[in-house]
Amino acid sequence: MATGAQALLQTLVGAGVTTCFTNPGTSEMHFVAALDQVPEMHAVLTLFEGVATGAADGYARMTGRPAATLLHLGPGLGNGLANLHNARRAQVPLLNIIGDHATYHVPFDAQLQSDIETVARNVSPHWVRTATSTLTLTRDATDAIAAACGPPPRIATLIVPADVSWGEGAEPVQPLPLAPAPPADGNVIGEIRGVLGAGHRTALLLGGAALHGTALRTAGRIAVATGAKLFAEVFPARIERGTGLPQVERIAYFAEMVAAQLAGFQHLVLVDTSAPVSFFGYPGKKSYLVPDGCRVHQLCHDTDDVAASLAALADAVGAPRQTTPGHPPSGQVPASQQPAGVRPGNGPLTADSVCRTVAALLPHGAIVSDEALTSGSTFAAASAGAPPHDVLTLAGGAIGQGLPVAVGAAIACPDRPVIALEADGSAMYTIQALWTMAHENLDITVVILNNRSYGILNVELQRVQASAAGPRATAQLDLGNPNLDFVSLGTGLGVPSVRSTTTFEFAAQLANALAEPGPHLIEAVIPQVFTGRKLRALPYALRAMESLPAPLAKAVKRRIAP
Amino acid sequence: MATGAQALLQTLVGAGVTTCFTNPGTSEMHFVAALDQVPEMHAVLTLFEGVATGAADGYARMTGRPAATLLHLGPGLGNGLANLHNARRAQVPLLNIIGDHATYHVPFDAQLQSDIETVARNVSPHWVRTATSTLTLTRDATDAIAAACGPPPRIATLIVPADVSWGEGAEPVQPLPLAPAPPADGNVIGEIRGVLGAGHRTALLLGGAALHGTALRTAGRIAVATGAKLFAEVFPARIERGTGLPQVERIAYFAEMVAAQLAGFQHLVLVDTSAPVSFFGYPGKKSYLVPDGCRVHQLCHDTDDVAASLAALADAVGAPRQTTPGHPPSGQVPASQQPAGVRPGNGPLTADSVCRTVAALLPHGAIVSDEALTSGSTFAAASAGAPPHDVLTLAGGAIGQGLPVAVGAAIACPDRPVIALEADGSAMYTIQALWTMAHENLDITVVILNNRSYGILNVELQRVQASAAGPRATAQLDLGNPNLDFVSLGTGLGVPSVRSTTTFEFAAQLANALAEPGPHLIEAVIPQVFTGRKLRALPYALRAMESLPAPLAKAVKRRIAP
Repeated sequence: MATGAQALLQTLVGAGVTTCFTNPGTSEMHFVAALDQVPEMHAVLTLFEGVATGAADGYARMTGRPAATLLHLGPGLGNGLANLHNARRAQVPLLNIIGDHATYHVPFDAQLQSDIETVARNVSPHWVRTATSTLTLTRDATDAIAAACGPPPRIATLIVPADVSWGEGAEPVQPLPLAPAPPADGNVIGEIRGVLGAGHRTALLLGGAALHGTALRTAGRIAVATGAKLFAEVFPARIERGTGLPQVERIAYFAEMVAAQLAGFQHLVLVDTSAPVSFFGYPGKKSYLVPDGCRVHQLCHDTDDVAASLAALADAVGAPRQTTPGHPPSGQVPASQQPAGVRPGNGPLTADSVCRTVAALLPHGAIVSDEALTSGSTFAAASAGAPPHDVLTLAGGAIGQGLPVAVGAAIACPDRPVIALEADGSAMYTIQALWTMAHENLDITVVILNNRSYGILNVELQRVQASAAGPRATAQLDLGNPNLDFVSLGTGLGVPSVRSTTTFEFAAQLANALAEPGPHLIEAVIPQVFTGRKLRALPYALRAMESLPAPLAKAVKRRIAP
Repeated sequence: MATGAQALLQTLVGAGVTTCFTNPGTSEMHFVAALDQVPEMHAVLTLFEGVATGAADGYARMTGRPAATLLHLGPGLGNGLANLHNARRAQVPLLNIIGDHATYHVPFDAQLQSDIETVARNVSPHWVRTATSTLTLTRDATDAIAAACGPPPRIATLIVPADVSWGEGAEPVQPLPLAPAPPADGNVIGEIRGVLGAGHRTALLLGGAALHGTALRTAGRIAVATGAKLFAEVFPARIERGTGLPQVERIAYFAEMVAAQLAGFQHLVLVDTSAPVSFFGYPGKKSYLVPDGCRVHQLCHDTDDVAASLAALADAVGAPRQTTPGHPPSGQVPASQQPAGVRPGNGPLTADSVCRTVAALLPHGAIVSDEALTSGSTFAAASAGAPPHDVLTLAGGAIGQGLPVAVGAAIACPDRPVIALEADGSAMYTIQALWTMAHENLDITVVILNNRSYGILNVELQRVQASAAGPRATAQLDLGNPNLDFVSLGTGLGVPSVRSTTTFEFAAQLANALAEPGPHLIEAVIPQVFTGRKLRALPYALRAMESLPAPLAKAVKRRIAP
């Protein structure tokens, strides 16, 4: 005989959900009290719910399995909502457990009463349930886990009233069998094989599960066999990159750049993603970014087995099997083709020198949580020839994801170094993540690129108005009054923190941080994006989010100015 | 001819909405760009949306008028949701302006697309509208302002698609006339007069607008004339206190204590509040806290003019008019009746010595944003005889309100000193507020009571289980690994910050901070609530949220243990 909370924990652990990112309150105290009875559950305390939800996202991106969150009523869900939005867009499995008032207490409309279910549907549209009885709670939990695991993977939200949690008589239950994901339909394979074999200019746009593991390698084999170009969606949840891996060009952030990237392609094959659209709408600019006359084909949907679908397509086009180690085929980046200038020499730090230095020192198997935004624009090009690594990007566009995702990735992969490339403005949404890094002694190196402004918004402000921005407008984008001191912030949250202002200093500090286990923070002070009323944002816009090859950058230079 | 954004700003300013707490993104860039054309609008930049929404709440509590927030799409609303929950419970007027994608961009389901309206209804149930045209945007704005102003005051949410903002041809419009609030019905006045004149034990439970200004003073006159006891709701949005003001006992946090407070009362008259209910439900404990046999009367609703209703009741019971200055009537705290022990002597700091010292040094006209929770439990008793001041409390129970509300109060009342009494755990939800305090050079003294734990949860954990809590459960409530260093955090966010460990040190630092304009932070290091597995929470529980008179505390001591 167990309480609902005890049996719930046992059921989660039995189904492989062994990590829970928590920020509990009174209505979750029975869940907390049960932790001592179920030691297999690793409860990771966070100081803010947005850290918990972002960490669960990062965990799922790296493991493919759901972690749980433990959130306190409607306001706790609200605080976690932005990173659940990102997790929904990243299409990860994730299980929210939200404590609620005791069922009999709800009609009294106490201070913390609110409609949790409706808000939860915003990020968890496919599965939200409020448990109604201690006796059925563990069945609710297995339903929730099955819904989270998919296919497709998604967010499931189980709301647990306090009396359901504290009630007696619950029993743990076994997990439901996972539903298998089928490969793509044979007719679709045949159609796409025909396209690939017809000599037309064709690109595969990879997203979701197609950007890492076997699926990515299979896509690379298809590219080698057919000459198709490989693109990645603009903000992949997880993309594997580096030497020996297929070269995949990320779709750019701004529509004008995407137009240049996709110009001339006659066919676009979507693999676990949708057709590219502009991140925002702009006056007189296109939202749908597939060029006129380009035909779109969908290899597989998010309910399909992506790797198996690509394997079937590879077989259909007669792609060669495994390549010999040490002899990367064309379409892959040879190890020797390291980008020039990885030793940038000493001098004041710039966003570019930070990116190049991180790329140059990137350890084998590193996980990079990339929320550097404008400041990280040259990292992708600089790290193309780095040792194999994973990059986790801002899948849903809601800033404040980078540090929490790094926490989740480090919990998921304790043997891999994690690097968080983080913009100053974005870091401030969930800076509390640093405390959890220290609390759990996670091997994370946080690099804060501090340009003392919302850099991306300077670009956007320049795009929305032809006239120069006034001082009151630009003041809204200026983080320099007072300057954020990330060394103090990191220290205050228990993470050893240093500041660097030159490239050599940064390189030495980064090398130290990577060599020593546990969390470290380096504040890289880089030039402000704008000085007074004169914006200097255009170079950033040109490279924003993903570097373009130089000739392409030239080609779009005129298009991008407002 | 103006853009939608320009005319919207002009319309807001014309209606007296001259403060906007912002955290903008791309979809709000036209609003930002328009700030230079409408200099009457004070745009207060925050680094996190929860700061913006909490500040708008604090502003409204002190002025009675709405401030605007400027939030970025659904995730921005999500980040602001917890403090909007508090604002909803505080029943303040507040206007959310949320930028959305351009109308034509919505069908493309870009990364940041989400259902904003549904989430907004969670905190803004009475008025949510998405603007559909540049030409009607300013009418939408005046409707929103009228809805926010009430009666009753409430949250209105106007969602502004980017193309509605950037479109041309908008014109500012005049505000709608404010609807007058009627006084309570004469029959109700008569009924309550009868109760008050019948010699029964009767209490007035004051909430909302009844706890400050003329309304509070009128309630005091009624108490003097009739012998009725005055209670305040458990978490008032704003309560005026101190010498010369009616003595009002706050309803306690725990149900057992409320039972002791209300025992023996035959009539309870509700003034702009509802009948007291337990904050949370507990096994075998009551949710509805009005004693059996006590009759409840409602003097006025939130749509009524509270001050006028109380004035009519005062006339009906023949309460004397103004009291002579310098001669406080009974029912008020005479200035000489200062609590004993305001000079606590030197020694290690405790929560109690911090509270007593703040009370002893409280400046005339101070505004206290109180989110000290367990650590602040003796502040109310200690400050009963302090100079007149306002206390703003956790109206909706969602922690992370205290620092943002202090920001809003300081913007609203630039000539009054603001003190934020803040618990360590609660401070960490919206610590970003410190930066805005520095950015705006606000006269706020932040006192962080750092006991290195979620103190209230230790009480709650003790209440939910008879057995001692295990180490994995108590670890979820422990903020001591690593210790949060609030001096570093404050410094990192630009606020001069010091730490104190003795009472003398704290008193000197507090006196300095209060004497010097601009923001200051004092980290008051106080003992941990628990040591190892042995909780020492019971004394806190006994006094939790509001001190009880000593005999009453004794009376409930046996009841409160699980």
